[in-house]
Amino acid sequence: MTTSSYASQVSNRMNNFGLAQTGSSKKFRVCVIGSGNWGTTVAKIVAENAAEKPELFQSEVRMWVYQEQLDGQNLTDIINAKHENVKYLPDIKLPSNLVADPDIKNTVKGADLVVFNIPHQFLRNICKQLQGIDFTGVRAISCLKGLEVSKDGVLLLSDYIEQQLGMHCGVLSGANLAPEVAKEKYCETTIAYPRPSDYYEGDIDESILKTLFQRQYFHVRISPDVAGVSIGGALKNVVALTAGFVEGRGWGDNAKAAIMRRGLLEMIKFSKTFFPDAKATTFTAESAGVADLITSCAGGRNHRVGMEMARTGKPIEQIEKELLNGQSAQGICTAREVNELLTEKNMADDFPLFTATYKIAFEDLNIDDLPAYLED
Amino acid sequence: MTTSSYASQVSNRMNNFGLAQTGSSKKFRVCVIGSGNWGTTVAKIVAENAAEKPELFQSEVRMWVYQEQLDGQNLTDIINAKHENVKYLPDIKLPSNLVADPDIKNTVKGADLVVFNIPHQFLRNICKQLQGIDFTGVRAISCLKGLEVSKDGVLLLSDYIEQQLGMHCGVLSGANLAPEVAKEKYCETTIAYPRPSDYYEGDIDESILKTLFQRQYFHVRISPDVAGVSIGGALKNVVALTAGFVEGRGWGDNAKAAIMRRGLLEMIKFSKTFFPDAKATTFTAESAGVADLITSCAGGRNHRVGMEMARTGKPIEQIEKELLNGQSAQGICTAREVNELLTEKNMADDFPLFTATYKIAFEDLNIDDLPAYLED
Repeated sequence: MTTSSYASQVSNRMNNFGLAQTGSSKKFRVCVIGSGNWGTTVAKIVAENAAEKPELFQSEVRMWVYQEQLDGQNLTDIINAKHENVKYLPDIKLPSNLVADPDIKNTVKGADLVVFNIPHQFLRNICKQLQGIDFTGVRAISCLKGLEVSKDGVLLLSDYIEQQLGMHCGVLSGANLAPEVAKEKYCETTIAYPRPSDYYEGDIDESILKTLFQRQYFHVRISPDVAGVSIGGALKNVVALTAGFVEGRGWGDNAKAAIMRRGLLEMIKFSKTFFPDAKATTFTAESAGVADLITSCAGGRNHRVGMEMARTGKPIEQIEKELLNGQSAQGICTAREVNELLTEKNMADDFPLFTATYKIAFEDLNIDDLPAYLED
Repeated sequence: MTTSSYASQVSNRMNNFGLAQTGSSKKFRVCVIGSGNWGTTVAKIVAENAAEKPELFQSEVRMWVYQEQLDGQNLTDIINAKHENVKYLPDIKLPSNLVADPDIKNTVKGADLVVFNIPHQFLRNICKQLQGIDFTGVRAISCLKGLEVSKDGVLLLSDYIEQQLGMHCGVLSGANLAPEVAKEKYCETTIAYPRPSDYYEGDIDESILKTLFQRQYFHVRISPDVAGVSIGGALKNVVALTAGFVEGRGWGDNAKAAIMRRGLLEMIKFSKTFFPDAKATTFTAESAGVADLITSCAGGRNHRVGMEMARTGKPIEQIEKELLNGQSAQGICTAREVNELLTEKNMADDFPLFTATYKIAFEDLNIDDLPAYLED
């Protein structure tokens, strides 16, 4: 398809969906899939900017919410009445142009940009529900943390979304503990969004994305490295589990820093092994790399789960249930996926920290044997 | 001087000093200059290994102690009687072959290796006291944190020691909060010790140093990068102050990680600017780099001083006195030195985090203006 015929097709689709256009510039319609604490926080950011920049964005931002009942009421109705996600992000006021929607197809209707922000394990099912819809020209940003592992190898979740739904998909990841971002405390994030091969004049680009996501408290950095940003976001959760193990054992800050150093090196090695285009500097210089690792090992969910496992010896998935109010610690799932991949490729010994973490979480390796396991 | 005549001179010196020699291998005599909590901890490590490896080291390790009176008793007498540094490292048993000595010249007498472990601000005076002694063939390891700044530029402290005393000097630095290492909790460290130009068969080398410093709980990594290891150790203290400011203001883990990320980048940029041979990977991959930064920003002295300044608004040097029981927060001194250098070179704006930290600590920049100051 030539660029011009593609642009005209996109234009037709837009007209069909009734998007407002001012001269050559259209107003982008944005929606968010997911409403956990990070999903709701990102939806809040996007809706704030959509409302403040009417020259670029349609004001209404729909957020798909997995419907639940709270005291006999629909969660979506509560969110839309109170402008607060009382279940997953309590005490944070949401903008009134953010509309909770239990119908995923209605949520994405007419959207120019779909922001995915759900736990990895729900992605397949979400994609199934969206299959068959024509997403020609629709763009996406994945805030998911994880990797899609199969016998064939490993796939970035943004690539999985692109393959399943035909949306060109970038990623957003960074040192972003949701409760702090929701309270509008200062932080940074990284967006990687290389322009699609079918990019057209007036299409969403990295500058539009920066405008959509940047707030005074949420500082966006643009990176070209989708793989590096994605892998950083996925693997830091595994290292955060390990850091939690060590902290839970009371070994102190030196030991925790040693684990994080080793973890960072394995993250880089993993990316170089499976995604040769990924850049080491994404891990060492970007918010989605070392900064996210630091934050996640300081106060994230995975770190808390790891600590609790070290303290109590309970099975890790039981701790996740008890500790996280229905949310998930993605590092548990990622540790398993990574181990599956490394075992399949006969490379488990090349990644001793990832392998030890898996064995502590799911097999019978003792945390006290971790230093010996990591010995060069 | 040819290598052989040099070796024979060294051999003469050794004989004059009565060093034991077994065949071609001599037993190295080690001493430590400094007895703060880190000085005493390193002396403990070295003395433990000296006692356990009689084939390599003389058992007695002398530690120079700046004499103080505690309840009318000499601190050195207390240390030697109780085998505990009750003032600076209480509740930690020291090996009996570690001997506290108030006489610095006696401490270094006959030493093959001098381990320097004092606050930077005492170094000039220490060197003056040692000048005139023949240190031919004597080697040194600096555990100091700081940089020697003058109108002419910046000098590593190990180079300063080498210039002042004629000892070839390497460095030891890493994620090593002294109280944790003293309690023998697991950690890593980095030693950089390129062999001297006058290296001779049987001389101290990186392998001897690893044997001297490595304990089961203290894992030594060898690096070729003296400048990188030194600058990492010096500048992380500045970043730890900044991280303390941010944490003291209650901005949370995301903001702190953002500061640490920016700090790490400025550390690398500083090293590349003033020590072009330094390697970026020392900062991103070694214990003396990112791991030390993480540890120092989690629980080090500088971080505590920065937090307290943010909370109370008191002058930083007053906080240092009140908080640290006579020990020093090296980041205060280093922030000043770095700013002096950058101002002299007209480069203060190229290092906004270091410059902002200086201005917060010593001038009138408000911590709340830090994010704006760091804006790209």
